[in-house]
Amino acid sequence: MALTLYELGGLDDRRYSLFSWRTRYALAHKGLTPEYRPVRISDKAAIAFSGQDKVPILVDGETVIHDSFRIAQHLEAHHGGETLFGGEIGQSLSRFFNSFVDRTIVPRLAPLIALDVTGILDDGDARHLRGVMEKAFGKTLEELAANRDKDVIALRRLLDPARAQLRAQPFISGSKPAYADYILFSPLQWARITSPFPILEEGDALSAWRERMLDLHGGLGRSIPARA
Amino acid sequence: MALTLYELGGLDDRRYSLFSWRTRYALAHKGLTPEYRPVRISDKAAIAFSGQDKVPILVDGETVIHDSFRIAQHLEAHHGGETLFGGEIGQSLSRFFNSFVDRTIVPRLAPLIALDVTGILDDGDARHLRGVMEKAFGKTLEELAANRDKDVIALRRLLDPARAQLRAQPFISGSKPAYADYILFSPLQWARITSPFPILEEGDALSAWRERMLDLHGGLGRSIPARA
Repeated sequence: MALTLYELGGLDDRRYSLFSWRTRYALAHKGLTPEYRPVRISDKAAIAFSGQDKVPILVDGETVIHDSFRIAQHLEAHHGGETLFGGEIGQSLSRFFNSFVDRTIVPRLAPLIALDVTGILDDGDARHLRGVMEKAFGKTLEELAANRDKDVIALRRLLDPARAQLRAQPFISGSKPAYADYILFSPLQWARITSPFPILEEGDALSAWRERMLDLHGGLGRSIPARA
Repeated sequence: MALTLYELGGLDDRRYSLFSWRTRYALAHKGLTPEYRPVRISDKAAIAFSGQDKVPILVDGETVIHDSFRIAQHLEAHHGGETLFGGEIGQSLSRFFNSFVDRTIVPRLAPLIALDVTGILDDGDARHLRGVMEKAFGKTLEELAANRDKDVIALRRLLDPARAQLRAQPFISGSKPAYADYILFSPLQWARITSPFPILEEGDALSAWRERMLDLHGGLGRSIPARA
């Protein structure tokens, strides 16, 4: 069955789409290889067929699914291979983890690097992203990044519960990675691809975990270089 | 096999121990009935046998276990009945949820009601708790509670990821309650028993969930009345 993943593409074919990295890893976890379709962030017409305006979108045969968590649920329900959730309780708590990362971590991370993200986009996409971000935060991208050396400290502290996990085990999900690991990896991978700003400190248990995450599935995460 | 749970007891036998409510529910979830031993918060000698100074402590035959999460792991590993975690991924993400609640929710909740908690304790225990809390927060209990009508709003916002869970399902853990539900219920039950201050608003999905939690296991949570 043909699988197609629509995700954001930047200059030099940098696939920087924050949430699509969850889907890329979830597909690899299931042993599935999709065809990738890069989309410009300003080009809503390209994905109008999905009935909404955000990526990732997975087309699985006749089925069109958007929203990375719903895509993961679809993959778990309809494809074999390793489990992403480990049953109902694991799936429920993965959804909680998804909400935690999206409501607590991403809104603190995005302002720090949004200015850098525009640097890997063509002029039209950069203007589009600037407009969206500046409207959402009520500040210019330059203002948002101005105190990031300080602001990143609060972000790192919010990651303490995730850090505590890694004292007891190599992955957020336990002895092996599962979907919750992909949830948290995705914003860090987005930052790695789009910005040279160090979100994590060297020596942080989360840094070592991120390296393990980059190694997974044949080095899938390293297929796009870090931004120097 | 005899099971004994050591937990905090206040005036009129109010069992207000924050973390012990996790263990009470976990035992009921497994169909187990322990003997309860109330301990005064200032009486460290009573629990010195455990090699540390905090409750809950579960004595299961020859085994002495402290720390509510470790007790839950012990129950899952050594007793049958309904699962608390649903496997390795669920157990790992329950540990994350435990860290999130203990590091993010409890430190925002405790200052709002610590003054009220002293009202259900005898003078010695009240003095002890006041000393511990005022040292930890660097303020008097009266100062900590002074702006609680405002401070509670930030606390409620931190509960958004948990609230989002309940849009899709009746319990944090899915269609049925499991250990993650007990993790979040415990500080709310602690607040219910020790303080008349409304942590949750009426109409909040978490309020309805808390009522369902109070109904569980034959109304276990209602065995101690709410503080009027």
